[in-house]
Amino acid sequence: MQVRDLTDTECQEVLQRLNLGRIACAKDNQPYVVPAYFYLDGRYLYSFGTLGQKIEWMRTNPRVCVEVDETTDVSQWTTVIAYGYYEELPDTPEHSEARQRAMTLFQTRRAWWSPAAAKRGTREHHVPIVYRISITRLTGRRTSSLESGS
Amino acid sequence: MQVRDLTDTECQEVLQRLNLGRIACAKDNQPYVVPAYFYLDGRYLYSFGTLGQKIEWMRTNPRVCVEVDETTDVSQWTTVIAYGYYEELPDTPEHSEARQRAMTLFQTRRAWWSPAAAKRGTREHHVPIVYRISITRLTGRRTSSLESGS
Repeated sequence: MQVRDLTDTECQEVLQRLNLGRIACAKDNQPYVVPAYFYLDGRYLYSFGTLGQKIEWMRTNPRVCVEVDETTDVSQWTTVIAYGYYEELPDTPEHSEARQRAMTLFQTRRAWWSPAAAKRGTREHHVPIVYRISITRLTGRRTSSLESGS
Repeated sequence: MQVRDLTDTECQEVLQRLNLGRIACAKDNQPYVVPAYFYLDGRYLYSFGTLGQKIEWMRTNPRVCVEVDETTDVSQWTTVIAYGYYEELPDTPEHSEARQRAMTLFQTRRAWWSPAAAKRGTREHHVPIVYRISITRLTGRRTSSLESGS
């Protein structure tokens, strides 16, 4: 099996296509990782969640890492990793443009059912906190057999 | 959609069944997350990888977080998170028993093709570093509809 690095454009294509990823944050060097849905727009990954450990930790330490992967066969996989910074988008005038962009992206898919938007023991969704990850670095790897068909 | 916490036994059942997870580590409060295969045995998650950022960071800071999830439908998902510590299992007498256990577990499935075991630009696998995560805490959530069939 041969593995190659993806270009920045290829990484972005994967992030556009695979909305379900995992976001890792850290507090006092303790990492934490949970699934979440992301919507790529330029150099930003837009998402949302209810207030909990993830949001609290990202407010304290905005450095995050988002991972998406795709496995179609034992020898065919792609993985993309985005490093970046957490930026909360509250409902205030200074964030209105970015927040509106986020809302438009979210409406393109049915995503409000994600783990990030649900709370234990309730049948209702809580008011989501909208945020975006400002991507500082993208890396990706893919098995060559995905492209050669071998 | 109703969401409930999983019991410790339920979390273990999910970890037994879903081998593909994502492991997060951190260095200087920068998180990093990558996919990896895990094999649960008691309170340990056994895995392997080639020397790279993940192993280097876990050697520096053994605190890790492993996540597995399962989504069958827009309203049906399960996610389990295991906090724990990285323990490398080198080929030395003091680690021989744990290392042998790991090897036996790995042989139950075809896993050597995973992203963790492949290096860029080669057709050969590198000698893997065997390790296990000593689980200190397990949490899990599931949508109720998975069980009710509704």
